[in-house]
Amino acid sequence: MQSTRGIMKIVRAPAAVTAWSDRLRREGVTIGFVPTMGALHDGHRSLIRAARLACDALVVSIFVNPTQFGPQEDLAKYPRPIARDRALCRAEGVDICFEPTAAAMYPPGFQTIVSVPGIARRWEGEARPHHFAGVATVVTKLFGIVRPHIALFGQKDFQQAALVRRLVTDLNLGVEIAVQPTVREPDGLAMSSRNVYLSADQRAAAPLLYRSLQAGAAAIRRGVREGSAVERVMADVVRREASVTVEYLAVCDPVTLEPLTAVDRRAVLLGSVRLGSVRLIDNLLVTVGVKR
Amino acid sequence: MQSTRGIMKIVRAPAAVTAWSDRLRREGVTIGFVPTMGALHDGHRSLIRAARLACDALVVSIFVNPTQFGPQEDLAKYPRPIARDRALCRAEGVDICFEPTAAAMYPPGFQTIVSVPGIARRWEGEARPHHFAGVATVVTKLFGIVRPHIALFGQKDFQQAALVRRLVTDLNLGVEIAVQPTVREPDGLAMSSRNVYLSADQRAAAPLLYRSLQAGAAAIRRGVREGSAVERVMADVVRREASVTVEYLAVCDPVTLEPLTAVDRRAVLLGSVRLGSVRLIDNLLVTVGVKR
Repeated sequence: MQSTRGIMKIVRAPAAVTAWSDRLRREGVTIGFVPTMGALHDGHRSLIRAARLACDALVVSIFVNPTQFGPQEDLAKYPRPIARDRALCRAEGVDICFEPTAAAMYPPGFQTIVSVPGIARRWEGEARPHHFAGVATVVTKLFGIVRPHIALFGQKDFQQAALVRRLVTDLNLGVEIAVQPTVREPDGLAMSSRNVYLSADQRAAAPLLYRSLQAGAAAIRRGVREGSAVERVMADVVRREASVTVEYLAVCDPVTLEPLTAVDRRAVLLGSVRLGSVRLIDNLLVTVGVKR
Repeated sequence: MQSTRGIMKIVRAPAAVTAWSDRLRREGVTIGFVPTMGALHDGHRSLIRAARLACDALVVSIFVNPTQFGPQEDLAKYPRPIARDRALCRAEGVDICFEPTAAAMYPPGFQTIVSVPGIARRWEGEARPHHFAGVATVVTKLFGIVRPHIALFGQKDFQQAALVRRLVTDLNLGVEIAVQPTVREPDGLAMSSRNVYLSADQRAAAPLLYRSLQAGAAAIRRGVREGSAVERVMADVVRREASVTVEYLAVCDPVTLEPLTAVDRRAVLLGSVRLGSVRLIDNLLVTVGVKR
C-alpha cells in the first residue's frame, strides 16, 4: 500500500477524488468515507475515528447540500466553520477532505433524482417534503465520486441511515453502511450542528426529547407492548414543558420505519420536537427481552 | 491480464458478477457491457462486436426488466429465445452472459427509483408513463453490479441512450456511454426485437417510418429550417399508408430532446408509428451544414 497518511489533501474537483480512489482500489487499499455537511462536532469525530480504525484510507466530504433543504429552511444560515472543520479532520488523520462546489455537483442540465418512497414517506419526510430525495441523490453521487468500501453514518439521523442502507441495497452500489451510536452532551442532548441555534432557555429544555425516549424505552422494558401506550408515555414527558412542541414521537419498525401496533422484537423510538423555530430529532433502539 | 476468453460463463447471481468485475478491475482489465432484454438481433451483435473491440472483457446481460413495461404492454409475450441468444453471445466472444432473475433484481422491500424527469417527459415517456423510470433504475442497478468501464447502447432507442448519458453524468457513475448506429433491414426498417410481432402486411408497410425520417432530413438539407415545416414533410410521407398511424414525428434537440422551433445546428428526428397494436420507433441525426 502506498501511504497517503500525514498530509491531508483538500480536494474540490470530483474527478480528482475518483482518480485517487481508483488508484488506491487497484492497490487493494480499503477506502472509508464519512459524508458531512461540515460544522463538525464530537458525533462526526466518532464517525471519523471509527472509519480511521476500519479502513486504510479515509475521505470526509464537507458539502452543505442545497437540494436537501426546503425553501423555508436554514440553508443560508447553516453554520460553515470550514477552518475548524479542516483542523478536526487533519487531527483525526483524514486523507482527503472533499469540498465540492454546488456548481460542480449540480451543473446546468442536472435533473436525475433518486427517491426511496417507502422509507422517506413518514416522520422527517412528512415535515420536509423533498429532503430525502435530496439526501438519496447526493449520497448516490458522493458514492459514485468517492467509491468507498465503507461509509459511516450517525444513528442520530436514524431515518437517513435506514434510507441509505435501502438505496445501497436497491441500487447495488456495493458500499458497506456502518451506523455509529449517537454521541450526546452530558445532559443527554444528541449532538447536532443545529444545537447552536438554541437560546439558553431552549438549550436547558432540549434534553427533554431524549428523556421522553428513555421513558418510552423504560415502559417497554416494564412490559408495555402496545405501540400507542408507549407513545403516550413519551408524550407525557414532553408535555411537562410548555416551550417544547412535539412534532412526532413514534414506535417503529427499525427497517421499514412503519409504526408498530405491538412491540414484539426490535423497535426504534423516533422523536422530533420543536423549540421555537428549532427542530430537534433523536431516537433510541429497543430490543424486547434483552436487558440494556 | 488473466484471460477469461474462450469459455463463456452464464451467471445468474449479481454478487458473482461484481466479484468477477472487481477482480478484473484490480488487474487493470477494461470491462465492456452491453445490457439487453435478449431476443438478440444484428443490432445487438453490432454492439457486442464494438464492445469486444474496445474492451478486454465483455459482459452481456439478458434481463427482460418487468419495471419498464406498462400494465397493458407485452411483458408476458416478449420473445425469450435464450438458447439462441447464448449461442450468439458465445460466437461473439462474450465472457459473461449475466441472466439475473427478477427476484434477485427486485427482492422484497425493494423501493428505490431513479428518475430523469426532463428527458423522460416527452415522446416515449408520454406514451409509456413509467417506462423510463424503470429503465433508469435497472441501468443504475446493472452498472452497480457489473461495474463496467464502457457500456454500449443502440442509437435506435435514442431517447433511452440520451437518458442513460444524463443519469451517468448526474449520478457520477463513471461509466463511458458509447452509442452505436442503428442496424437496419435491407429495406430500411430498424432492427428491433419487436419486429417479430408484425404481420406480413404490416412488415411491408413498416419501412415507411424510416422513409418519413429520411424525407425530413432531406428537407433540412434542402434548406427547410422551421421545425414544424420539417414535421409536416415527415407526416405527409406516413399519411400515404392508411394502416400506419403516427404517434409522433418531431424535430428535437439531441441532448435535451425538447422540440426545436428552428433547426440551426444538430437535430434529431424522432418518430414513432403504430401498425395495429405494434408500436415502432426510429430516429435520424441531422447536422445542418454538413453533407451526408
